[in-house]
Amino acid sequence: MLKANDPGLHSWIEIAADSDFPIQNLPFGIFTTPDRDPRVGVAIGEYILDLCVVAQHNMFELIDLDPNVFHRPYLNEFIALGKPIWRAVRNRVSELLRNHNEEISGNSDLIRECLVEQYKAQMLIPVQVPNYTDFYSSIEHATNVGTMFRDPANALSPNWKHLPVGYHGRASSIVVSGTNIHRPKGQTKAPQADAPAFGSCRQLDFELEVAFITGRETALGQSITPDQADDYIFGLVLFNDWSARDIQTWEYVPLGPFLAKSFGSSISPWVVTLDALEPFKVKGPEQDPRPLSYLEFTGNHHYDINLEVLLQPAGGRANCISRSNYKYMYWNMNQQLAHQSSNGCNIQVGDVYASGTISGSTRESYGSMLELTWGGTQPITLPDGTQRRFINDHDTIIMRGYAGRNGTRIGFGEVRTKILPAI
Amino acid sequence: MLKANDPGLHSWIEIAADSDFPIQNLPFGIFTTPDRDPRVGVAIGEYILDLCVVAQHNMFELIDLDPNVFHRPYLNEFIALGKPIWRAVRNRVSELLRNHNEEISGNSDLIRECLVEQYKAQMLIPVQVPNYTDFYSSIEHATNVGTMFRDPANALSPNWKHLPVGYHGRASSIVVSGTNIHRPKGQTKAPQADAPAFGSCRQLDFELEVAFITGRETALGQSITPDQADDYIFGLVLFNDWSARDIQTWEYVPLGPFLAKSFGSSISPWVVTLDALEPFKVKGPEQDPRPLSYLEFTGNHHYDINLEVLLQPAGGRANCISRSNYKYMYWNMNQQLAHQSSNGCNIQVGDVYASGTISGSTRESYGSMLELTWGGTQPITLPDGTQRRFINDHDTIIMRGYAGRNGTRIGFGEVRTKILPAI
Repeated sequence: MLKANDPGLHSWIEIAADSDFPIQNLPFGIFTTPDRDPRVGVAIGEYILDLCVVAQHNMFELIDLDPNVFHRPYLNEFIALGKPIWRAVRNRVSELLRNHNEEISGNSDLIRECLVEQYKAQMLIPVQVPNYTDFYSSIEHATNVGTMFRDPANALSPNWKHLPVGYHGRASSIVVSGTNIHRPKGQTKAPQADAPAFGSCRQLDFELEVAFITGRETALGQSITPDQADDYIFGLVLFNDWSARDIQTWEYVPLGPFLAKSFGSSISPWVVTLDALEPFKVKGPEQDPRPLSYLEFTGNHHYDINLEVLLQPAGGRANCISRSNYKYMYWNMNQQLAHQSSNGCNIQVGDVYASGTISGSTRESYGSMLELTWGGTQPITLPDGTQRRFINDHDTIIMRGYAGRNGTRIGFGEVRTKILPAI
Repeated sequence: MLKANDPGLHSWIEIAADSDFPIQNLPFGIFTTPDRDPRVGVAIGEYILDLCVVAQHNMFELIDLDPNVFHRPYLNEFIALGKPIWRAVRNRVSELLRNHNEEISGNSDLIRECLVEQYKAQMLIPVQVPNYTDFYSSIEHATNVGTMFRDPANALSPNWKHLPVGYHGRASSIVVSGTNIHRPKGQTKAPQADAPAFGSCRQLDFELEVAFITGRETALGQSITPDQADDYIFGLVLFNDWSARDIQTWEYVPLGPFLAKSFGSSISPWVVTLDALEPFKVKGPEQDPRPLSYLEFTGNHHYDINLEVLLQPAGGRANCISRSNYKYMYWNMNQQLAHQSSNGCNIQVGDVYASGTISGSTRESYGSMLELTWGGTQPITLPDGTQRRFINDHDTIIMRGYAGRNGTRIGFGEVRTKILPAI
């Protein structure tokens, strides 16, 4: 019998070759339509499989779960059931959608009941987020920022290669793709000015990140090793860590980024499981010095995921302004989760752990305007002739990602956010 | 008719003169007993008034609320009803408990049903905390820390007098008084060492703080002025922001405190309402330079609340090691909430906003071991002859607070935490 990731699998649903959502992917999300209240779905081609309906028809009866778990406005309750259940549900969905399986495809009424066209659905935020951490794990990004703001000769802080630097972020302002965000206001101080002023941010930036979502909790005082982390991680989303650079510069010493970040962070709606990404594991960069033992891991925990950022001006076309890859990370997510829990901090279901800006080694692969325009000194010229040092009002930022090899494409869809003027 | 705060009010319940919970206080909390599942209660003398039972007997029938709102394991749903409802419920509870009111006192069965002795109940965490921010708003504390770790001549960072510096903390590890906390492990680096090491924290500290809890949400993009903040703040609790100084020193540059804090923070179980504290408002310190207009306020928003910290060694007596006061704050909570929301960050019901360590100007009033022992260089000697530079395993830290004048005492109870060895 073929496994859910087998590139030879085909579905009875017609799926374009460049779709993000072939039968090998099957990411989970929360959707609603005028006729369906919020519930769990799985993306397949241009459709969503409504797991609430599938469960009502007893098609998960061999899996130990309450069918109502899919009739919820967040994935939290489902993913709290644990990895054996996520895996069993994904495998069963794969079976139901395969060529020659007639449990759904053999009944046209059932097809209409179970499948929703994606363009008719509204995607909601997939999880209720109890805690959010943002790491800073790309050595190229940390080096670029350190070079610009601190000392080019000592761009990385002394701790950087010894631990995955991170900070707690604001959970309340994480929003799903498609949610507009107003330009923040805040306190800033120009280097020459005598005193700070309050007003609209003038250096609004994106940060290209990938975030993992946990599906299993720990008790306060307990820790997770890097090798145990796979059992705690449900899947990944694209993450745009919106940043107000001018606010950040003035506020962040001594206690770190605060209002420069908390006005909004955007995530993609489909959570791509670690299981779907298994074939795209790659070796990460050599870590020198060797990490302390609580950060040591076996096997590969980096993932080859192509990432791109597009900037779409009001009324114009989307232009690609950056191409990066999640495999560029110095610290991997297993090390991040081990570090987060190393002091006994308890992990909760639905927590979001973002990677930090993912920059590569070349200018084209930098994951923020700060780096792409080198602090605003080298503006980008768009095909329409306009220039950008940072993000303008009415610009839309779109991030996309996919893992691909030998014709199989495991895509993330996109995270798309339009910036509106300050209120 | 007498108002709920009138010092002339008396209850039909006998209340000791030094009780934290006279009829003028009436703080809200969540409790459980072997016979009663988690629910909302109000502290009165040595008792808890069970609001779930009071509501079942239709004694809130003139207030527009669903009586089931008191039959919940967290206060969030009740406080989300808004200030007019909190106030109406507190006023009604005051009426029911007053001398000569016989609605409860006239029926001995009803008294037994409505009142629970505090020693028979277990207090639970009062709110589910969606977001937690820790400010840094005591000028004495910030000056002490800046003097020790940065530059005595420039102890305050340049932004400190222009904005209430703060950072996002970890919500998951906030626990209620009585919950033991294990000494954290973490990565540290001695100044002379070549490389960092991983092990048990050797500089475990408390921080004496007061936190406010919000009871009203805002939409993303909206801001609150300092004068509007009163409508958003439900009440206050004592807050012990446990800190691992050696972990903090190594990790906090450049992105702020992270694992040095997230292993646990302890709060007192009774939320004292702003209404109960109204008579204890005082003028705060002069703010020079004058804050920007979004931080300007009218009236008094500081509160005269006496605070103390006691250290109890295993098997020994509790010794007072610090006496401070919430009125020492430079930035008040209305300014803190205005700053937090100034960038459009959305506020949620149950958010916890802690003050930062509250230190006074004299050694006896410092709110952390770091300051009391000046970085561990001047140990405290306890009456049993033992010394402390930081906190030992099996030590218990107790924080207490009360506002008092002319015989009225509005108390907070306590937050008590025992430190267990690292796991």
